[in-house]
Amino acid sequence: MPRLVAVGSIAYDSLETPFGRRERALGGSAVHFSLAARLFTEVGVVGVVGDDFDGEPVLTERGIDTSGIQVVPGGTTFAWEGRYGYDLNVAETLDTRLGVFEHFDPQLGAAHRDAPVLFLGNIQPDLQRSVRAQSNAAFVALDSMNLWIEIAKDSLTAAIGEVDAVILNDGEARQLTGEATLLKAARAISALGPRIVVIKRGEYGAALFVDGRFFGVPGYPLEEVFDPTGAGDSFAGGFVGYLAASGQTSPDLEHLRRAVAYGSIVASFNVEEFGTERVQRLCRDEVDGRVRDFHAMTSFVLA
Amino acid sequence: MPRLVAVGSIAYDSLETPFGRRERALGGSAVHFSLAARLFTEVGVVGVVGDDFDGEPVLTERGIDTSGIQVVPGGTTFAWEGRYGYDLNVAETLDTRLGVFEHFDPQLGAAHRDAPVLFLGNIQPDLQRSVRAQSNAAFVALDSMNLWIEIAKDSLTAAIGEVDAVILNDGEARQLTGEATLLKAARAISALGPRIVVIKRGEYGAALFVDGRFFGVPGYPLEEVFDPTGAGDSFAGGFVGYLAASGQTSPDLEHLRRAVAYGSIVASFNVEEFGTERVQRLCRDEVDGRVRDFHAMTSFVLA
Repeated sequence: MPRLVAVGSIAYDSLETPFGRRERALGGSAVHFSLAARLFTEVGVVGVVGDDFDGEPVLTERGIDTSGIQVVPGGTTFAWEGRYGYDLNVAETLDTRLGVFEHFDPQLGAAHRDAPVLFLGNIQPDLQRSVRAQSNAAFVALDSMNLWIEIAKDSLTAAIGEVDAVILNDGEARQLTGEATLLKAARAISALGPRIVVIKRGEYGAALFVDGRFFGVPGYPLEEVFDPTGAGDSFAGGFVGYLAASGQTSPDLEHLRRAVAYGSIVASFNVEEFGTERVQRLCRDEVDGRVRDFHAMTSFVLA
Repeated sequence: MPRLVAVGSIAYDSLETPFGRRERALGGSAVHFSLAARLFTEVGVVGVVGDDFDGEPVLTERGIDTSGIQVVPGGTTFAWEGRYGYDLNVAETLDTRLGVFEHFDPQLGAAHRDAPVLFLGNIQPDLQRSVRAQSNAAFVALDSMNLWIEIAKDSLTAAIGEVDAVILNDGEARQLTGEATLLKAARAISALGPRIVVIKRGEYGAALFVDGRFFGVPGYPLEEVFDPTGAGDSFAGGFVGYLAASGQTSPDLEHLRRAVAYGSIVASFNVEEFGTERVQRLCRDEVDGRVRDFHAMTSFVLA
């Protein structure tokens, strides 16, 4: 039985950045998340694909349980086409074909219902609530996106009220709460229910708010950033995966801080190559090594 | 004799933010810098004003040596009028009246030539070079702005080659070097001569590159940001002021890291109120307290 079950999109991404392009690269929030989280713990993926999907071996070869991937005969897998300019923080969507993802109605099998940790990747918030209701997990984390803040804010607010941890980027946190500063936005999100609020800031790092306390890291400095697609999901996979491995159902501050560092570092590997390419061949030793470097790069001593 | 001499603009700023406005608030790079640096060491200001200037008591009452401020009879002090929208990262200049600042030709008096530390605030880079040539300082830091990168890049490059530390914001560092990542931009600046490169990232914190090593801090999380004017100069004042107080002519990594933390924290106070208002009544104890909080907020323990 996996310790961590992740629900989200499984997709083919066609990507263009100033540095090159890829056609139909394996992607989607659940894929990026699980490829990151499997570095820390046993992961099961719940998602939907068409019978054009051939990416399963990439997951199973890395120990990821794919029994929760539903294959719709005659259907086509969610496909996204996007482009980044030199400002890699902003993606321009060229084409979105939802395919079988449009009618995704995630159901947890018996083995997945009892996994102690659940990650609700970026899907329609009513579906996130449905999955949460099916699960007996002791710790549940949720990611979302601006689309749901715009068209399903009440549902998203309800979903947030039912989880332990929320992971958003800073623009989303501000948009959701109407608060200008990160501190106020995080406090407003926490007031909806979650003990833990994580705010991703792209190249600028990440921040954690828990029990009224703040923790922040800058971004890991990279020589090159190749493709930011999936960075947020890789962050979430490192963060939640690290916590799932700890076995704590109410993680303490020390573990949470370290989990933010692990999430940041897995994301830093993710953006060094296209799509999932770098994280596919990432080893735990490499992650641990870069986390040690990161620790040295962010520590100072009081006088 | 001051340990630290700062050359730069002395100005009256008329400011408008979404939170209010101020007419003719005391400002300018040398003023913001010295009000910050005086928390750490003895500071002398070198600048020029017209006989409309009445801000000197604000400086002298805080122990700042104003003997280097030249008063031009019949002249008017540099005046800037600007506005910030809800994105407090971007200032819109409504009016600039250079006044006596247009013909500023800074001359160091005997006591100022021998100060061990010199800060070259944001003025025309040939003037920075002239001041640097007049000084016997063992440690010299320089700030600049996008204007000089655009219209006096060769002079600025030469000025950078003559100092120990450069302090720029991230947009300026990228613009100056044409490099997309912070790491490459910092390395390119260091290749011009300076051992120390500091990159300010506004609300996202600051980064330090020294001897090929990186150090980074996130921004100190604030409940409210009222007015960002002078944040960069306050950062520089905290950073250089802390180093000047250490007495090291080639500061070691431990002091440099702590100086980045001090710069960040002084800047965090600066933006809490209009112009120099908060830093004028800031005490060293408050700064030390917030630096301790900041240390706790940015530390994690390796497993």
